[in-house]
Amino acid sequence: MITFHRPTHFYETLDTNHVMEDAFAKVQHECQSDEIGYYKLPVTSREVIRELQAYTQDNSVLLEAQTVVAVGIGGSSLGAKAIDSLLRHKRTNAKELIFFENSDPVDIVSKLKKLQKENLALILISKSGGTIETISTFKAIVAYLDFDFASDDAKRLIVITDPDSILSQFAQEYGIKEFTMPSNVGGRFSVLSAVGIVPLFLMGYDVEALLEGAGSLIDRFFERQEEHLLQKAYYLYTNNQTISINVLFAYSNLLEDFSKWYVQLWGESLGKIDTQGNRVGLTPIGLTGSVDQHSFLQLIIEGPRNKSVTFMNIDDFEEDITIPNISLKRIEKTDYINGNSFGKLINAQCDATMQSVMDSGVVADKISLSIANEENIGALIAYFELLTSITGAMMGVNTYNQPGVELGKDILVKKFQA
Amino acid sequence: MITFHRPTHFYETLDTNHVMEDAFAKVQHECQSDEIGYYKLPVTSREVIRELQAYTQDNSVLLEAQTVVAVGIGGSSLGAKAIDSLLRHKRTNAKELIFFENSDPVDIVSKLKKLQKENLALILISKSGGTIETISTFKAIVAYLDFDFASDDAKRLIVITDPDSILSQFAQEYGIKEFTMPSNVGGRFSVLSAVGIVPLFLMGYDVEALLEGAGSLIDRFFERQEEHLLQKAYYLYTNNQTISINVLFAYSNLLEDFSKWYVQLWGESLGKIDTQGNRVGLTPIGLTGSVDQHSFLQLIIEGPRNKSVTFMNIDDFEEDITIPNISLKRIEKTDYINGNSFGKLINAQCDATMQSVMDSGVVADKISLSIANEENIGALIAYFELLTSITGAMMGVNTYNQPGVELGKDILVKKFQA
Repeated sequence: MITFHRPTHFYETLDTNHVMEDAFAKVQHECQSDEIGYYKLPVTSREVIRELQAYTQDNSVLLEAQTVVAVGIGGSSLGAKAIDSLLRHKRTNAKELIFFENSDPVDIVSKLKKLQKENLALILISKSGGTIETISTFKAIVAYLDFDFASDDAKRLIVITDPDSILSQFAQEYGIKEFTMPSNVGGRFSVLSAVGIVPLFLMGYDVEALLEGAGSLIDRFFERQEEHLLQKAYYLYTNNQTISINVLFAYSNLLEDFSKWYVQLWGESLGKIDTQGNRVGLTPIGLTGSVDQHSFLQLIIEGPRNKSVTFMNIDDFEEDITIPNISLKRIEKTDYINGNSFGKLINAQCDATMQSVMDSGVVADKISLSIANEENIGALIAYFELLTSITGAMMGVNTYNQPGVELGKDILVKKFQA
Repeated sequence: MITFHRPTHFYETLDTNHVMEDAFAKVQHECQSDEIGYYKLPVTSREVIRELQAYTQDNSVLLEAQTVVAVGIGGSSLGAKAIDSLLRHKRTNAKELIFFENSDPVDIVSKLKKLQKENLALILISKSGGTIETISTFKAIVAYLDFDFASDDAKRLIVITDPDSILSQFAQEYGIKEFTMPSNVGGRFSVLSAVGIVPLFLMGYDVEALLEGAGSLIDRFFERQEEHLLQKAYYLYTNNQTISINVLFAYSNLLEDFSKWYVQLWGESLGKIDTQGNRVGLTPIGLTGSVDQHSFLQLIIEGPRNKSVTFMNIDDFEEDITIPNISLKRIEKTDYINGNSFGKLINAQCDATMQSVMDSGVVADKISLSIANEENIGALIAYFELLTSITGAMMGVNTYNQPGVELGKDILVKKFQA
């Protein structure tokens, strides 16, 4: 279960201009017209699962692989990585999921050393097909493992890309198994497409439950049973000039990679030149509690009133541990916590910090996962995707493109071709 | 070597009100009066090293320990963690440095499983002595390892805390080796005190060179040979209402933890109620390149003009790897990069992104480390500490306290004592 706590006046809104209804209509149209495809992934990706089941039945090396390598960056890695980080402590198999993302040589070398060809499933993910970090790293892996496309090695490889991309043509050229991303699904909205489903399936996660959780929330939203999403988006939209920073304060290390996924989704979707030619956007920041109580919290409490804070927690960690009943001489003042679990401590810290943030006049809300499982994570993903689409609709931006990053790519190519 | 690139008009300043001179005088007074102690740590911490050398000579279990555990949070962990992350790939010993920071039970359990008492050096770090996460985690470790203060186990333990804190009294009570932090050094400015020096020394890093690098930069600053620091602080101060967000865009995974150290330093020092009663502050954000080109960059380029960006890179990764001369059919367009190293690629990405950011009208500068080594890292730490002190002086805040975080702590205690 996932619970949305709204303890402040965050959602009390008077919407005389029907901004909420207009945004709902726009998002509904995006979904119904198939202009934007992520809304239907909880349904359409069931076909990906069936295809994966059939393919891996005939190709057991992929299921037996103890190391699953995903080569991809940005929208091609952040989602699956977030989910793996939330769930890997609960896995009963000994598999490892390794992401090659950055072009950092030290990072690449240290990860290459972990690879053995006999033990590997290799997933190459690039929407456009030509992402320079991804293809270069793939070449480094091919060379390091002496990977031969003409041999059985090819059975260890899966390509995920846009239909008709150059990477899709590459896969067909070498007879490599390919899954395509729906062309109406952008990279940062693609975690529930093959991009996320393929690596997570190979790791043994319950991808059906992931889709189920996301699908339920999306259905409820379109049935007008999750109106708090519209109200929250409306608040963020109407106050975006003053409250320009949105902090996700997640109380567990398990949620650190989820915050990175959120930062891409929110920042890259809403940071745009709007239809009026104005530069708009909301700045996402991901924090981890309780650690960042000792870092960023001071700025939230006493600094400029330009932030809203969404707290996030896991009610039941399942794997919990008790603070022992040890009394150390001279530091007895910490004994008040003895006998409680660390899970209870961190959740109490979340509540105490939220209260202190609100007491200081900062707007806050909170999202609680009952436990970390596939269904709840699916719902969490759908929540932030819907919130992004609605807020983008209100702000009058194209939520789904990223024109600002092309210039740097062009400059890079020229540096090497000169 | 560390180089400060100033390619924009970032530093062209007309300072008719002598803000820069006043800030310099304030910082100089802080140093000379010993009101603030971090400026002199590069000198005073040499005594910590000598004491460590003498103590570990008589107590070889600490030097032989293959697992060094640091229990601490915020200023008690971020600095040493940042340095270890930058240098561990170059270490020739097989030691591991484990930080217990968060009260997350899953994180604590997974780290406990790595510990063996026979192989351990255990460092307990808390400035106040009563940090609830730190002391609770320490108790969990004590229980898990069946640690007996009355036995030889105690030789594996070092306590680092304020003079006369309750933790200092605890150490004296049980006869545990203790290093004190100078009382005029705040947690987030403490990395070059025993807080950082002790764990890094036990890991085999060249802590003398670390102090040397920091000391040189601080000396040059007070000799007026690093005026760009004053100029940059002045720019950030005078524009803080419009450019309220400062992004550190670091092009290497090695620098990810350094960014977290920077976020605490900058956010917690400057996010304050100023002497006029106004809420002020500058919001720090840490990004990692090239990964975050695929995430946050769009918002920088096209979003609101409320950000400055400091790029950071490592010129020579030393451990580099070449992108193989492999041409894959249909994706030949990526071949332009073949034969170059990943180090060259990531540094070219840094430059290309910086150029595209500046072309879009966003203010940027760049800091380059020639290589990742102790001396350069020391200088880098001193650079950001000085920049923080100067900017704080200009903004009229108390750079060195954190009154805003006390309320949450009080609420927490009441939750458990009720």
